[in-house]
Amino acid sequence: MRNIRMMICYVGTAYHGFQRQNNARAVQNVIEDTLTQILGQQTLIAGCSRTDAGVHARQFCLSFRTHNPIPCGGLIRAMNSKLPGDIAVMGCEDAADDFHARYSCRGKEYEYLIHNADVRDPFLDNRALFYPYRMDTDRIGKAASFLEGRHDFTSFCGSDGMKEDNFRTVEYIRISSTDGMISVKIAADGFLYNMVRIIIGTLIEVNEGRMSPEDMPALLESKDRKLAGVTAPSHGLYLNKVFY
Amino acid sequence: MRNIRMMICYVGTAYHGFQRQNNARAVQNVIEDTLTQILGQQTLIAGCSRTDAGVHARQFCLSFRTHNPIPCGGLIRAMNSKLPGDIAVMGCEDAADDFHARYSCRGKEYEYLIHNADVRDPFLDNRALFYPYRMDTDRIGKAASFLEGRHDFTSFCGSDGMKEDNFRTVEYIRISSTDGMISVKIAADGFLYNMVRIIIGTLIEVNEGRMSPEDMPALLESKDRKLAGVTAPSHGLYLNKVFY
Repeated sequence: MRNIRMMICYVGTAYHGFQRQNNARAVQNVIEDTLTQILGQQTLIAGCSRTDAGVHARQFCLSFRTHNPIPCGGLIRAMNSKLPGDIAVMGCEDAADDFHARYSCRGKEYEYLIHNADVRDPFLDNRALFYPYRMDTDRIGKAASFLEGRHDFTSFCGSDGMKEDNFRTVEYIRISSTDGMISVKIAADGFLYNMVRIIIGTLIEVNEGRMSPEDMPALLESKDRKLAGVTAPSHGLYLNKVFY
Repeated sequence: MRNIRMMICYVGTAYHGFQRQNNARAVQNVIEDTLTQILGQQTLIAGCSRTDAGVHARQFCLSFRTHNPIPCGGLIRAMNSKLPGDIAVMGCEDAADDFHARYSCRGKEYEYLIHNADVRDPFLDNRALFYPYRMDTDRIGKAASFLEGRHDFTSFCGSDGMKEDNFRTVEYIRISSTDGMISVKIAADGFLYNMVRIIIGTLIEVNEGRMSPEDMPALLESKDRKLAGVTAPSHGLYLNKVFY
């Protein structure tokens, strides 16, 4: 039995997230249906992450088992000729027998794009959060630096996602700005439900002066989701890299 | 009576071109409905160009007359709050009384994007022509240079667009290439129906060896649409600049 590791990329706008849904179109449904058709056998996949409706992925890893001997190059070509234009397979290889897209994942990098301009750009519709107000990247960068490291991120966890252990290690939060676009990249060994989007919503609160950067340690300490910012919209969020 | 000149920008994917349609959604319908609502009077606009279904515009000029004294800045804000996310107003000003978006236009620049990579990028779906074969930009550049200048472009005119005078002056055709993307910019004093898309289809024929650059003068001379390449898909085409 082969164990296949596949990298895909997708625009999330038309999908109700990655995870298989019974009554809505999810990326997983489309991939599994296409694989099942090509491989000639019912195929179920494991994904590296659930992503919410509207979230994009530049690098998303999945794994599955098959008896089919099709070479990886041929499988990539067959998939890309059948998949819709907003999903593509970027790579594929035979993996070690114990590889699993979700459980083997050591970390991920998400990117959140903020379209910071006076007038919105239609070509960035559904691809970045439009934010027409002045953004003080030094100020939000200072707030972000308090979130780096190992912390209990309960204050930054959506209510559906509570787990027993809410400690995560944020490797870095990197903020950069170019020509009307602000990028916030966050890498961690794992993410709680809505964690990136709540961090972004909180950084916006900091930018607008309703919180100060120095409030971050007490916010982490409070373990109270209601004290953090709102959950920023999904359409600015990209799963950017997965680490194994 | 004020004469207003307005610059808009749109992603053409969801529209049946710019020009008003009775049974389909066109950009003109959306703009006129929104203006009529804001200005409180039935408003009809003139656009600088028809664009085909799926064609995009980074700079599209339109003009209209109104008695409403609303300041241009307020009109921009009102429009952008009401328009769908794939259309935006970039600028607006009171124009001379004889200004007309179409008749005053002295020229335009179109850009055609070719996504030239082994694997298609979902984020470029509907935004560039995916072309996974080697592109010899020197060779197509040589062919393009024969099309610069003043010529009868009948061979490059779609059948619906025949006019009495098919002479046009192509100011330049500039081909550039960066990281998986080839850009072809074409500026002219006017364009025949489908002219840019037929030029692109012809350059692809030249790239693939079915025509040579040196065939271009005879192709122009023939005035025979059937001898040129196919009409390239609309989704790679952008109205990039309009000159007055």
